[in-house]
Amino acid sequence: MAYLNDNYLKLRAGYLFPEISRRVTAFCDQNPEAKKNIIRCGIGDVTEPLPAAVLAALHKAVDDQGTRENFHGYGPEQGYEFLRHAIAQNDYRDKGLEIADDEIFVSDGSKCDCGNILDILGSDNFIAVMDPVYPVYVDTNVMAGHTGPANEFGAYEGLVYLPCTAENGFVADLPKEKVDVAYLCFPNNPTGAVATRAQLEAWVKYALQNDTLLLFDAAYEAYIGDPAIPHSIYEIPGARECAIEFRSFSKNGGFTGVRCAFTVVPKTLLAKTRNGERKPLHPLWNRRMSTKFNGVSYIVQRGAEALYSPEGKAQVAALITHYMGNATILRDAATAAGMQVFGGVNAPYIWVKTPNGISSWDMFDLMLEEANIVITPGSGFGSAGEGYFRISAFNSRANAEEAARRIKALAL
Amino acid sequence: MAYLNDNYLKLRAGYLFPEISRRVTAFCDQNPEAKKNIIRCGIGDVTEPLPAAVLAALHKAVDDQGTRENFHGYGPEQGYEFLRHAIAQNDYRDKGLEIADDEIFVSDGSKCDCGNILDILGSDNFIAVMDPVYPVYVDTNVMAGHTGPANEFGAYEGLVYLPCTAENGFVADLPKEKVDVAYLCFPNNPTGAVATRAQLEAWVKYALQNDTLLLFDAAYEAYIGDPAIPHSIYEIPGARECAIEFRSFSKNGGFTGVRCAFTVVPKTLLAKTRNGERKPLHPLWNRRMSTKFNGVSYIVQRGAEALYSPEGKAQVAALITHYMGNATILRDAATAAGMQVFGGVNAPYIWVKTPNGISSWDMFDLMLEEANIVITPGSGFGSAGEGYFRISAFNSRANAEEAARRIKALAL
Repeated sequence: MAYLNDNYLKLRAGYLFPEISRRVTAFCDQNPEAKKNIIRCGIGDVTEPLPAAVLAALHKAVDDQGTRENFHGYGPEQGYEFLRHAIAQNDYRDKGLEIADDEIFVSDGSKCDCGNILDILGSDNFIAVMDPVYPVYVDTNVMAGHTGPANEFGAYEGLVYLPCTAENGFVADLPKEKVDVAYLCFPNNPTGAVATRAQLEAWVKYALQNDTLLLFDAAYEAYIGDPAIPHSIYEIPGARECAIEFRSFSKNGGFTGVRCAFTVVPKTLLAKTRNGERKPLHPLWNRRMSTKFNGVSYIVQRGAEALYSPEGKAQVAALITHYMGNATILRDAATAAGMQVFGGVNAPYIWVKTPNGISSWDMFDLMLEEANIVITPGSGFGSAGEGYFRISAFNSRANAEEAARRIKALAL
Repeated sequence: MAYLNDNYLKLRAGYLFPEISRRVTAFCDQNPEAKKNIIRCGIGDVTEPLPAAVLAALHKAVDDQGTRENFHGYGPEQGYEFLRHAIAQNDYRDKGLEIADDEIFVSDGSKCDCGNILDILGSDNFIAVMDPVYPVYVDTNVMAGHTGPANEFGAYEGLVYLPCTAENGFVADLPKEKVDVAYLCFPNNPTGAVATRAQLEAWVKYALQNDTLLLFDAAYEAYIGDPAIPHSIYEIPGARECAIEFRSFSKNGGFTGVRCAFTVVPKTLLAKTRNGERKPLHPLWNRRMSTKFNGVSYIVQRGAEALYSPEGKAQVAALITHYMGNATILRDAATAAGMQVFGGVNAPYIWVKTPNGISSWDMFDLMLEEANIVITPGSGFGSAGEGYFRISAFNSRANAEEAARRIKALAL
């Protein structure tokens, strides 16, 4: 009989969002009147329509698929040159960062890329993650057999968890031990923290000294307003020798339902074989994508390309302004309610300390019952998230303003 | 330093299509006049525009993404219910096959699914593939560490290769040994062979007796014209207990550039843990898709849904008729040229024995030089493909007719 992958059995049940959903449903069943008032500030999903430039490009690409002359069948698995070029030029070379077109790999999502990257890495790596952490980094390592079982706090044996706390500004200290792979995410999900240039320089220095591969998730880079904060790990000298960067069109272009992202694998990035030989990772990722992926929809890639047009760039900027306006409104409201607030400045997530030391889940219930607002309990992202909750700024302005009004009215 | 996945180093270079490309380029450089005449019957990519019903649905879905009311952000990772239902109802339940909506997992391609399915299987399975074979089945197992190195014929140690020959009608005999997993593909790529009901019954019987998981690739089922030939493995009683089925919209709806497919994982399908416990695979695949995938583009899923409308069904039927018309024309031409021809009846691929015992690659050169036609050498699909070549029927009618004229004119 076929063997299944036993590592999946180590996974804790998809605990966080199902539990949120269960509690919201139970509350609505008991409070049918309140149901209509619920404002969802939980999941980080965009709410605003696609930019007009994208819509026009999508329509045109659909038309292309309707004529034999302009029809596009199988495209390059790595992405069309028109999009790889637009990305490398606009996001990197125009900013003085040397990234070649063929170091860009277009995909259908950063979530996929963050998980799939493990395909090209060996099974004996010592791996560090932040705590709190985007659960995909952890769960994909569990599934790949890189961990032991979870303990009572949900931490898996074999991973190095680096606590992100108010004391370190939610930017983890460098590992005390030598790790082979480290996941970094800035602007951070869930804490909204950003890393300064000096902090990223320290990480790159650590990586080069310890031969560590940095997996740098920059899905929220568009939300950085402070000109001193790096958008890309490649702004740090040496990063081409130690880092892979993940980016997405989900949160800048509003592509969560359209599906397009990309990964940057510099050709100068090496990893070692079991017998210690150093080899580039670029050909391995290229082979992985060629063999297990068939490229992103032509239509979608044309839509993504439009984000780099002058109109597209202006429309993306307007979307960011919109969501960051929400962030300011919600951040100010939580502050006015007497809570200690982090993030929400260069990031669409606000990370709030629960008042009076109550637990994350108690705060979830309080927000649901008192304000009819759904937030995300910080403990769902790891044990260091206990005592915090996340407010997402992805919402309509009207909802953000109403949520702010209710937060300010809370009797804490 | 990070370890890379050494298994990738066992992979033979992406040998087949790059070598084809190299030879075509060299020929064109030396024969600039012939370059204009080249007809490509190599890669199995569709050429005809998308069905009108699909185009209309895609445009409408793009419009949805332009309004806040109808905007769709993150969708269910498993696919929207509207599409899972349309698939399960039309492709299965309307044909008397009990498949539930939530046994359908929508994805961005069968190539991806065929590779990703290994995520949920253990590392100790004994695996059988056909020879010749779609290279993705083999390469993904190599990458996952399920094989040793390749021998001089390109066969990997540890896999069971089941020869498909003229003697067995290109439907492999059952394995003599007990295998844990077997890949089946009918209608077959590359041979165009189909399996009769009796042959599939024998496979299911073998699978149930030996506790074998069948990975059944039915990407070309729409090309079956013979009413006696099963379209789905689930037409065979017992298959719900032993088979996963892969299907695609690439070759029926012409979605090679649009990207949509699906995998059927029955809830009744079990596999065993290392300590011999039997557990269902459905929750594992659901967890895999939830964690490492973020769903197919909403726009694309609306396009796929339209294939099940009355207009969509008629338009798909017209596309199949078109390509199968090409198949008949090309098949007849190869027969008229004195060659022994297989496939091309319930499949868009024609599998031709090379004349006078010449090698697959010599035949490739001959077809390129004498007829300016690009075919695929059979040996590229495995050693049992030596002495054969594949002609693809995916082309315009004009190209198919011209290719047929040139094939008939060959002096063999």
